[in-house]
Amino acid sequence: MKRKAKTSGHPPGTVVFTGEKKVENVQVTLIEYDERVSEEKEIRNVADFVPARKKPSVSWINVNGLHDTRLIETFGERFGLHPLVLEDIVNIDHRPKVDEFEGYLFIVLKMITYRNDRNKIDIEHVSLVVGNNFVLSFQEREGDVFGQIRERIHMAKGRIRKMGADYLAYTLVDAIVDKYFDVLEETGERFEALEEELLSDPRPETSARINGIKRDLIYLRKSVWPLREIIANLERGESAIMKPSTHVFLRDVHDHTIQVIDTLETYRDMISGLLDMYLSSISNRMNEVMKVLTLIATIFIPLTFIAGIYGMNFRHMPELGWRWGYFAVLIVMGCVGAVMVFFFKRKRWL
Amino acid sequence: MKRKAKTSGHPPGTVVFTGEKKVENVQVTLIEYDERVSEEKEIRNVADFVPARKKPSVSWINVNGLHDTRLIETFGERFGLHPLVLEDIVNIDHRPKVDEFEGYLFIVLKMITYRNDRNKIDIEHVSLVVGNNFVLSFQEREGDVFGQIRERIHMAKGRIRKMGADYLAYTLVDAIVDKYFDVLEETGERFEALEEELLSDPRPETSARINGIKRDLIYLRKSVWPLREIIANLERGESAIMKPSTHVFLRDVHDHTIQVIDTLETYRDMISGLLDMYLSSISNRMNEVMKVLTLIATIFIPLTFIAGIYGMNFRHMPELGWRWGYFAVLIVMGCVGAVMVFFFKRKRWL
Amino acid sequence: MKRKAKTSGHPPGTVVFTGEKKVENVQVTLIEYDERVSEEKEIRNVADFVPARKKPSVSWINVNGLHDTRLIETFGERFGLHPLVLEDIVNIDHRPKVDEFEGYLFIVLKMITYRNDRNKIDIEHVSLVVGNNFVLSFQEREGDVFGQIRERIHMAKGRIRKMGADYLAYTLVDAIVDKYFDVLEETGERFEALEEELLSDPRPETSARINGIKRDLIYLRKSVWPLREIIANLERGESAIMKPSTHVFLRDVHDHTIQVIDTLETYRDMISGLLDMYLSSISNRMNEVMKVLTLIATIFIPLTFIAGIYGMNFRHMPELGWRWGYFAVLIVMGCVGAVMVFFFKRKRWL
Amino acid sequence: MKRKAKTSGHPPGTVVFTGEKKVENVQVTLIEYDERVSEEKEIRNVADFVPARKKPSVSWINVNGLHDTRLIETFGERFGLHPLVLEDIVNIDHRPKVDEFEGYLFIVLKMITYRNDRNKIDIEHVSLVVGNNFVLSFQEREGDVFGQIRERIHMAKGRIRKMGADYLAYTLVDAIVDKYFDVLEETGERFEALEEELLSDPRPETSARINGIKRDLIYLRKSVWPLREIIANLERGESAIMKPSTHVFLRDVHDHTIQVIDTLETYRDMISGLLDMYLSSISNRMNEVMKVLTLIATIFIPLTFIAGIYGMNFRHMPELGWRWGYFAVLIVMGCVGAVMVFFFKRKRWL
Amino acid sequence: MKRKAKTSGHPPGTVVFTGEKKVENVQVTLIEYDERVSEEKEIRNVADFVPARKKPSVSWINVNGLHDTRLIETFGERFGLHPLVLEDIVNIDHRPKVDEFEGYLFIVLKMITYRNDRNKIDIEHVSLVVGNNFVLSFQEREGDVFGQIRERIHMAKGRIRKMGADYLAYTLVDAIVDKYFDVLEETGERFEALEEELLSDPRPETSARINGIKRDLIYLRKSVWPLREIIANLERGESAIMKPSTHVFLRDVHDHTIQVIDTLETYRDMISGLLDMYLSSISNRMNEVMKVLTLIATIFIPLTFIAGIYGMNFRHMPELGWRWGYFAVLIVMGCVGAVMVFFFKRKRWL
Repeated sequence: MKRKAKTSGHPPGTVVFTGEKKVENVQVTLIEYDERVSEEKEIRNVADFVPARKKPSVSWINVNGLHDTRLIETFGERFGLHPLVLEDIVNIDHRPKVDEFEGYLFIVLKMITYRNDRNKIDIEHVSLVVGNNFVLSFQEREGDVFGQIRERIHMAKGRIRKMGADYLAYTLVDAIVDKYFDVLEETGERFEALEEELLSDPRPETSARINGIKRDLIYLRKSVWPLREIIANLERGESAIMKPSTHVFLRDVHDHTIQVIDTLETYRDMISGLLDMYLSSISNRMNEVMKVLTLIATIFIPLTFIAGIYGMNFRHMPELGWRWGYFAVLIVMGCVGAVMVFFFKRKRWL
Repeated sequence: MKRKAKTSGHPPGTVVFTGEKKVENVQVTLIEYDERVSEEKEIRNVADFVPARKKPSVSWINVNGLHDTRLIETFGERFGLHPLVLEDIVNIDHRPKVDEFEGYLFIVLKMITYRNDRNKIDIEHVSLVVGNNFVLSFQEREGDVFGQIRERIHMAKGRIRKMGADYLAYTLVDAIVDKYFDVLEETGERFEALEEELLSDPRPETSARINGIKRDLIYLRKSVWPLREIIANLERGESAIMKPSTHVFLRDVHDHTIQVIDTLETYRDMISGLLDMYLSSISNRMNEVMKVLTLIATIFIPLTFIAGIYGMNFRHMPELGWRWGYFAVLIVMGCVGAVMVFFFKRKRWL
Repeated sequence: MKRKAKTSGHPPGTVVFTGEKKVENVQVTLIEYDERVSEEKEIRNVADFVPARKKPSVSWINVNGLHDTRLIETFGERFGLHPLVLEDIVNIDHRPKVDEFEGYLFIVLKMITYRNDRNKIDIEHVSLVVGNNFVLSFQEREGDVFGQIRERIHMAKGRIRKMGADYLAYTLVDAIVDKYFDVLEETGERFEALEEELLSDPRPETSARINGIKRDLIYLRKSVWPLREIIANLERGESAIMKPSTHVFLRDVHDHTIQVIDTLETYRDMISGLLDMYLSSISNRMNEVMKVLTLIATIFIPLTFIAGIYGMNFRHMPELGWRWGYFAVLIVMGCVGAVMVFFFKRKRWL
Repeated sequence: MKRKAKTSGHPPGTVVFTGEKKVENVQVTLIEYDERVSEEKEIRNVADFVPARKKPSVSWINVNGLHDTRLIETFGERFGLHPLVLEDIVNIDHRPKVDEFEGYLFIVLKMITYRNDRNKIDIEHVSLVVGNNFVLSFQEREGDVFGQIRERIHMAKGRIRKMGADYLAYTLVDAIVDKYFDVLEETGERFEALEEELLSDPRPETSARINGIKRDLIYLRKSVWPLREIIANLERGESAIMKPSTHVFLRDVHDHTIQVIDTLETYRDMISGLLDMYLSSISNRMNEVMKVLTLIATIFIPLTFIAGIYGMNFRHMPELGWRWGYFAVLIVMGCVGAVMVFFFKRKRWL
Repeated sequence: MKRKAKTSGHPPGTVVFTGEKKVENVQVTLIEYDERVSEEKEIRNVADFVPARKKPSVSWINVNGLHDTRLIETFGERFGLHPLVLEDIVNIDHRPKVDEFEGYLFIVLKMITYRNDRNKIDIEHVSLVVGNNFVLSFQEREGDVFGQIRERIHMAKGRIRKMGADYLAYTLVDAIVDKYFDVLEETGERFEALEEELLSDPRPETSARINGIKRDLIYLRKSVWPLREIIANLERGESAIMKPSTHVFLRDVHDHTIQVIDTLETYRDMISGLLDMYLSSISNRMNEVMKVLTLIATIFIPLTFIAGIYGMNFRHMPELGWRWGYFAVLIVMGCVGAVMVFFFKRKRWL
């Protein structure tokens, strides 16, 4: 969240990258397709690129890497994007939103993956610019959830080759939302592991781990929550870019979003249950420790006192001279101990 | 929740079963009835089945088992269902919803039963497709809450034989909602058992059991909450499928749904009360243990000290030589003990 | 809540009593009045009763006892009530609501009384059917809050004899809402008693008693909350049954309902304060117990150690032979004890 | 809250005083003013008073004391007030509200003062009846926040003499709302005192005091919250009584109300922080006590054990005869103690 | 919050400064600019200043210091401001708001900076009056976040010199909102520091520090929350002052405000996680202390008892005379200790 501070003070519309550089060279790929053919090529020099707006085909330009703000500005000029759009493309802390401009839609999303190595979720800033026959997608680095979409385009699987740029945009959003289910699945597994640990062997670190999941849920929520409104907005069909034929699909991805949010809320409710269990398990352990201490102390302290009495050096202590004094005392001690044990049994402490 | 992940990456409308196979063979049953006759038969080959759309009777086709996606797709072709509908029929994690399509309504519900053997609730995915003169119902396995409806159809009990497919759909939804009351009743009984246990004999496992009920309530809530909106939608009468004569019944099932939700909220409020009682009972037990320890230690530690003094081996200790020294010390010890006991009595620890 | 289960499986509109039989014989009373006269009689045979719909007077029929479903159905036929209305009259777990039907209003309410003997609130299911010149009221048993209304009718107190059936219905609702204030008053007194107990002498049972009040508040809330919407609905004047002259009175009872809800919310906020006080009082008691233990143990354990040293039987222990050794040790012990006490004084533990 | 019960059972519109009598004699004062003159006199006999409705001046009649319901009814007749208005004037538990009647507005408010002597807030019921050229104000007792308004009228300070009865009503409401800021200031000071006490010297009573402030905040909230809606209603200008020239002032008092509510919410959030600090300070104190006990016990118990060994009376214990045995044991004891202390230092308990 | 009390009792529109005097002399600066030139000068005598309303340029008058209410009133006369506006300019506790008046907009904001020296946030009251060709800004003291805006005006950076007074007002608001991100960044760093401390070395002060951040978040929230509505109001374009060309920029600052609020909510959720971790770390520490005590006491108390037995002075104790008695007892003691240690190992306490 803190990196936004870098841009403070600049005039609005200044293109300032607020993230860390995650790729060495920005990679720009163009996929063009219509019902008959599809073609993929890399664009070396964006400045020379002329978008063929007249062709009935769909152009999808994907950009991996946001640190080259000069390149982003070139895109802005080529496609006539508003400076504030460019600012938000490279402001990786911007929350998800959709804005409608003259001739294009601007969509900001978060692509979420679970990083097994670091045991936490990873959030990547993705922006989409959707025009009548083109889609621009901007990502922080290589590696995305769009692999199968590329395959579907090239193999002409499903209806994607027959539909327009708006359907492509829907497919990209859908792929991102579908990935959330994977992340929720991982989170569910961490949940179960944590719960098992809680029941079998709660440790001081458990509290920090519960808090870790809680935090991941907070970040997920922050990324997913605005999505609901965004897709509802698109679905409501106020923009001319989103054609009516795509609306039934938007309704589907809207359903998925609500399902993700539902699951997040469910996890949120359940995490507080885990914490309660953890706290009560600490208290129970303390109780157990206390019981052992009390047991030992309560049995032996009176016995030690009795031993102490007959360890006194008074000259006139008749019991000391008795023939069976020692054994009598041992028996008394045994009885006292037995009474104590009986008392604890009745209290169910033993 | 995690199984949704299986479908991620597929083009939208791909029919992928996300559950576990719960029946060996998919069983398809057809019930046809009008005001005069009713007939029930099993359909062996769905591909050959031709829905008789012209007849004034109502056809109810029930499918037990969702794993045979090929069969589901055949249904889709026969009845002209949208691919996204087929996807949601076999996506058993989909949340309850109602969607209106050209010529039919698609309703997703959760059928909930309480499993005594596993001591937790069991959620089954049920989908309804409601047309002008037919209802399709899809369930995960045999065994449902629709037994009495079949009986009512065959015995011509109530008004069911005189009404259309929309009334049949209402009856199915009503049966599912009525079952929720049974589950709430079981939950209420678990509540009472738990409360009694809490008052008489709280144990470390109690916390896990409270959490178990809490979790069941969360799942129930997730299944029931969307239902309210669904039935309100149907009741509002925007769809031509739902005829005005059925609206008064929808209002009734709407009332029931709200009552279920009310009860769930009540349980939710009460479960936090149970947890508070449990935590304070742990603390009280700890207090009790501590008091016993303090009592014993506080009485005997000073006495042992006195005994220790007269156990010292100094050559010049006048008391040791006194005639009644030993008895005097015993009396002093008795007094000290009595003062302690009196002190504890006043503090109400004894 | 659990008794609703009894009705599950029946066709909608089946009249099934879900409560316990609380009166032996159902008692049906008719009060007829107009501006000049009022008359009260018991109806022995409902089947023979013919409501005189043409007369300009108002008829109020009160039924005590809901277990005779046959009688309720007879009422249904006589007054042309919808089967779903009859179902809800005898379903004592139904939540408060108002439904408008052709020619009459159906109102479900909860009459709440505080039972001193069982130390908890008692909820009774009351249904009102309000027509143009009649009111039917159904109660679970004898004994209600309508006594003063009967008196006002017979004595012609206030405006009741000059107004129609809608005003009578308002008066009945108002009497029920007024009773809530009595229950809140009782609850307020339990609150104060509990608080005093908490400050003077908190006991393990206190937690269960706090939870008891909390539960009563939850039930009260469940009964009262829907009332607000009901009365707002009536006040909004959408029904022809409720005449404009009654609206100013409905606004008044609406105000009372909001006041009841406000007070309930206030109690709800305050009960969590009580619980916090209880929990911190437990902790404080534990602290106090611990301090006493620590005090005694910390003072005497070192002293006992010193005594233990000079209780050793080494042959060469020079101190043992000293003339004033014993007294010196006693002085040392006194000093150690004094230092300890001083230390505790400074720590404010004493 | 409990006194409302007194009125239950009466027909609506019965004037029943629900508070305690706080003044001996009801005092009625009339202030009449227009742009040129102002006059103040006491009204001895309300029955004889004839409101001069034709004069272009403004009449403000203030009543201190509500127990004389006969007098209130006389006012009702003189000014043509609805019986329900009279009922609410003397029902001191009624929540704040505004009702519009034919020819006048009825406003219920709460005047709040902080009572230093009882260390809690004091809530007084105030009702305003605002007509075209008169304002009636009803208070429970003498002493109010209107002193400076009287002065402004007599000294012709500000615009009050030039404006109508609606501006006077606004001024009264504004004075009451301004007083809330004083009460919030007092509450803020109690907060700071409490926080300082918490940091320096938390005591068992602190919990009760935190709860006391919490309760005051709950009551304040209950009194202030409805005010927002009331003033928004007046500001919206639906009533002919409130003239457009007064709207800008109503917007101002609306702002103040929101600010009061904001501050209350802030305090509410902060009080839970105080409670958390208190609870963790109790736990920390317990920890500290436990550490001292553990320290002393853990150091001396092993040493005492060693002393105990050499206090045994076996005939054959070679160490006892050694020349430097005693001193060796003392050194061993010193080492054991030192090791313990070192161990605690490393654990940071010392 | 408490200083508002100073104004209570005054007639509305009285200009009373409610803050502390933070600058010695009020400093008034005028910046005038149009597309071609910009000029900055200090205004010594406000009374002589005549705003040149006809010129097509934009005038920005900034006032540092609010204690000189006479000067503020002079401004009011010069620019025809409503007395209530003047009252709110110097009422530094007023919440953020926007009010529309004839010919100008009045905006109240909070400028927030993080004070490293005092380790808490600092809130400054800022008011803007926006007319057609002028902006007045009022601040409590010198030093603000507008430095770069002045530079942009003088250097003609960005579009500011080409736009009107409404764009200048937007720029000022944007600068204030951008500063919030810096404050959030500082807060995020305090968060991380606190979390690290919590994991490595929780101390009693930690609770107070968590509460300190919590309080800062509450204040931030109170300052930022109303901003959302304010900017949404401006964006909705109801005022003629805000020209359509500025709307796209208002949408941008609206996005930023929502992002700030999102982050605040995230922090709010996370702070409760910190508190939970702190409380469970206290409990864990207590557990650890208890375990050490229990360990030592449980091992040595029985051993001491055995030593006590053979320290008794009975004449007839056969073991005392045995040749290897002493060594046998030592071995027994070793075994008892070993059993205890083994028991604790199995319980995982060691």
